[in-house]
Order: sequence, then C-alpha cells, then structure tokens
Amino acid sequence: MNIEMITAAADRLKGHARRTPLLSAPQLDEIAGRRVLVKAECLQHTGSFKFRGGWAAVSALPPEVREKGVIAYSSGNHAQGVAAAARAFGIPAVIVMPSDAPAPKIQGTKTLGGDVILYDRATEVREDIGDRLAAERGLTLIKPYDDAQVIAGQGTVGLEIADQAAEAGVTHGDVLVCCGGGGLTAGVALALEARAPGLRVRPAEPEGFDDTARSLASGTPQGNATQSGGLCDAILTPRPGALTFPINKRLCGPGVVVSDAEVLRAMALAFRHLKVVAEPGGAVALAGALFHGAQLQGDAVIATISGGNTDPAVFARALESL
Amino acid sequence: MNIEMITAAADRLKGHARRTPLLSAPQLDEIAGRRVLVKAECLQHTGSFKFRGGWAAVSALPPEVREKGVIAYSSGNHAQGVAAAARAFGIPAVIVMPSDAPAPKIQGTKTLGGDVILYDRATEVREDIGDRLAAERGLTLIKPYDDAQVIAGQGTVGLEIADQAAEAGVTHGDVLVCCGGGGLTAGVALALEARAPGLRVRPAEPEGFDDTARSLASGTPQGNATQSGGLCDAILTPRPGALTFPINKRLCGPGVVVSDAEVLRAMALAFRHLKVVAEPGGAVALAGALFHGAQLQGDAVIATISGGNTDPAVFARALESL
Repeated sequence: MNIEMITAAADRLKGHARRTPLLSAPQLDEIAGRRVLVKAECLQHTGSFKFRGGWAAVSALPPEVREKGVIAYSSGNHAQGVAAAARAFGIPAVIVMPSDAPAPKIQGTKTLGGDVILYDRATEVREDIGDRLAAERGLTLIKPYDDAQVIAGQGTVGLEIADQAAEAGVTHGDVLVCCGGGGLTAGVALALEARAPGLRVRPAEPEGFDDTARSLASGTPQGNATQSGGLCDAILTPRPGALTFPINKRLCGPGVVVSDAEVLRAMALAFRHLKVVAEPGGAVALAGALFHGAQLQGDAVIATISGGNTDPAVFARALESL
Repeated sequence: MNIEMITAAADRLKGHARRTPLLSAPQLDEIAGRRVLVKAECLQHTGSFKFRGGWAAVSALPPEVREKGVIAYSSGNHAQGVAAAARAFGIPAVIVMPSDAPAPKIQGTKTLGGDVILYDRATEVREDIGDRLAAERGLTLIKPYDDAQVIAGQGTVGLEIADQAAEAGVTHGDVLVCCGGGGLTAGVALALEARAPGLRVRPAEPEGFDDTARSLASGTPQGNATQSGGLCDAILTPRPGALTFPINKRLCGPGVVVSDAEVLRAMALAFRHLKVVAEPGGAVALAGALFHGAQLQGDAVIATISGGNTDPAVFARALESL
C-alpha cells in the first residue's frame, strides 16, 4: 500500500464518485469548543464511502476477470458500493448479507442490481460463504476492507480531506474516522501521511465494539466479545484487518470510543445543523469530535460522516434527543 | 435586473457561500420516470439558499451605510441568512420574525447574533414594523425577495445549476424551484436565461398558497386567501413580489402545485435516497418533480431543495410515510 495506489484510484474514480463537501456550522463549533469540519460521505453515491472502495476494486480488475462478475459480503454499505460499481460496468454482483441487516440496505442493494444472499450472523461465517460462492461461479471476491484496492479507494476520502481542510485553513489537528474493519481509517491515514502530515487520524468506534482502540492501545489485534446487536451495525466487525491494522498501528493516534447515546445525539445535531442524514455507525466520529474533546488535540477537528443508510425508526429515535 | 448583477453577486459570494452539490439517486429516477437532479441548497450556510441573498445584499451596501446595521423581516430562513452575513461583516442585524415561526429558526437566528423581534402574523403587518424600525435606528432594510441584490444573490444558485447540469449532460428540461415571494425563482430564471436557455424554470408551491401559479395563469398578481397555518411555513407569502413577478411572468413556465402529503413524502424520499434534510417548504419542488411528472417536459428534471430548517416533530411525521 502506498500513496500512488490511492492517487491511481482517484484517477479511476474521477467523474464517477462525488467529491463530497466538508461541512461546518457555528453551533457545532460551540458544542465542541473548537472548529468542527465534517466530511459528509453520506452524500456519496449509495449513501456511504463504500462506493469508492467498490469502484476502485472493480475498476482495477483485468477485463477478462471482471466480466465473470464479483461477490461481496457486507452488512450493507459495502454491498451497495460494490453492486453500484458492478452495475456501471455491466457485470454480475452477488452480495452475501446478514439476515438482520437494516431493510433499506438489503432493498438498496437489490435495487442496484445486486443478487442478495442472506446468512445468519450468529451461526454462519460470511467468509466461508463468500469463498465457496467465488470458487463455484468464477466470481472475484471483493473484501470489505482487507483488500489493497478497496483501501486505496477509501483513501481518496483522505486526498479530498487534505485539499478541503487546507482550503479551510486547517493543516493541523485530529481527523476522526468511523472505524469498523479499518479500511477507511487506513486509506485516509495513508493519504494524509503523504498530503497533510499535520493531520492525524483517530479511529472512532462505539462502546462494546472498540476492537481497534484496544488493539492500538495494546499493540496487537484484539477481538470484540460480541459481534451483533449493536446500534452501529455498519461498523461491527470481529477484529482489525490483517492489511489495515499494521497501517493504522503505524499512522493513527489512540482510538476514541463513544456511547450509543452520544451517537444518537450526534445524528440529531447533524440533522439540525448540517442538514445531512447520518446512520449510527456513520456518526461515531462526529460524536467523538463533539463529546470527547478532552482527548483531542488542536484548534480544529475533522470528522467523517461515513454513511447515511439508516432505518427511519432509528432516525426518529435520534431526533427525540433534540 | 440583469445577468451582470448575478455574476457580480457570485464574485462577492466567492469563498463565502458553498457551491452546493447537485445530487441524484437511481431510486428517485425510477419514481419520477425520468432523471432527477436535486440542487441541495439545504446544505448552504444557515441551512437554506437565503444566505446567498443576505450576503449579496449586505455586501453591496456602501461601507458607511452598512456599518449602521441592517434589518430584515422573515419567517426564518431569510433572517438567518441576513444575520449570518451581518455577523461576518461585524454589523448589527435586527430581525423581525412571526411569533409562530419554528423554534429552531428563531433560535438559529439568535445564535447567529440576530436581535430578534417577534410579531403576530394574524394581527400585525411585518412591513410596517420593518419600515418603522429602519427609520428609527438608521438601519437598512433587507427585504426577503423584492430587492434587486437579494434576487441577484439567489440567482447564483442558477449559475451553479447551469454549470452542474451541463456537467451531468443535461441542457434541456424543467427546473422546479420552491417559490414563496419568488426571489429564488426569479434569480434562477434570469441566470438560466443567460447561461442555459434550454432549461426552463417552473415555480413549485403548496396547495392553498399557490399565488404565483395562479398569477402566472391569469397574467396578473393574485393573492392567497390565507396567510398562515400551512405546513410549508418558509414559503408562505401573501402574493408575488413587485420586482419578482414581472421577471417570473416573462421567463417561467406554468406553476406546479403539490399537496402536503406529497411534500412529506418528498422529505422522506430525500432522507432515504439523498441523505439530506429538507424542510416542508424546501421539498415542494422535489414533490413536483416526483409526483407531477405528467406536467413536465424533457428526459430530466432539476429540483431545488431550498432549505432544511425543520422541527424534528415535522420531520418524524414525514418519516412515517416510508
């Protein structure tokens, strides 16, 4: 993994991925006690940053391999990203999803042309299902984070943050990134290392699923005790990735861990002051920026809103915190 | 009013107003039966396009006049736009608001440094209050739509639509614009006349407050029977403006009128597929694009989401339509 892979991914994504805005509101600055800049990847195609990694991976395949189709396992956002990219290339996309994924994510994936196969998160291992189907049908497996091209695609978020933060006059401070398997975190960290070395990535995770924070603290990969049931479904992964963790260990500051109540409050404040929809897993970084300022350094903080695919009932619950 | 005033406003706004994205989602295209491109002005500073007009008007004042301060009467979004612009210039802003305006709009205006004065929409005339205060304190009145510089500022939305639609390959079709007093409608219409003559503005209004649609149909200004109580509070005005109506009469196609149920549904679909927050008055154009396609021409339709400042309870009600 290096910056050239990320700039190459940016070239392939040009004209296909959106350059999402870096938003701000004086009311959020007041709450945080410092400037807050929000990278709104919920406004990306398919409603999350995952479109970038999906496109980067599919576009990197040799045409004769790509035309046989791709397969992905995902709690939803990666699925939609890969399905949308596959449809643009006119190739089949088989998507293996947990049966308890939010209905809009399952429906969204089907609408984008994905052939959805559901599995039970408690009793089945998605990697086993993915490997078997890939072998049977000649499909190429696009992993959600432990894939160099996927990390490169997510890293294009970091290239944009570097440029947009500089335009806003911010060259030093912490960049909170919503962290599941660590693909977005690793990609952004690599991009900032090359393009904005004064900006330091801090992975943000929900309580109970803080595997990366504990892994960074201990120096070795740590798993989560439970693997389902959390509010932040999009970023529930068993442990840091084999490709992503070494990158994050080298480049990231300590993890920031937030409560579900803080996540819901961050969603509500993004609604009120930024006018964007954040899903719970996509709001952990903003929650860290707003409510854990004592752990942060600098006059400004940057936070990703990584996705906006949430059930209306969950969003309505978040609004009750206003 | 001419295109030079709009391009001059764009120059003054540069680096201060956001170039908001033109969003899309395949699910909305399916519903509408044509391509749908959405100009998301809810992502503008202060949560609506009104920041543009406020900044354009304040920045156009001679410094010795400007420093005495400005005054505005507004149901909320214009108030916030003027207050934010005044704060940036370090001058006082007195804002006359109806006492039944949504709480977030009143609070938002105060947070931005506005000196808020409330009035009763049923028994008082805001123009009288505004004129008196302006005379007493030497303030310059910034009208919400019947002001050439305000129209020029709103017209910068049209300049961006012309560029962004061309980038998306759209040069012909209808552009639905949320219409209250007609300032955004007139500004966008003037900009498109000069920069994208294949795009035609269609004012969008809620049932019961369709003064511009009826005025365009009859050729003379028509008033609304009632002036408060509607869902779409941001765009409830008594009648078309003296400056705006002649422009809109010359340049716009027939008005499109939508029901409150369609407005709520459009808000919900913007939540689900675009991940942005639309207020009711800001969703009328999208409602027209999605649900009144038989009245539209072309393979693509462009709709403004003009603002996102809504009460959480109203938004939760909209989500129930999903």
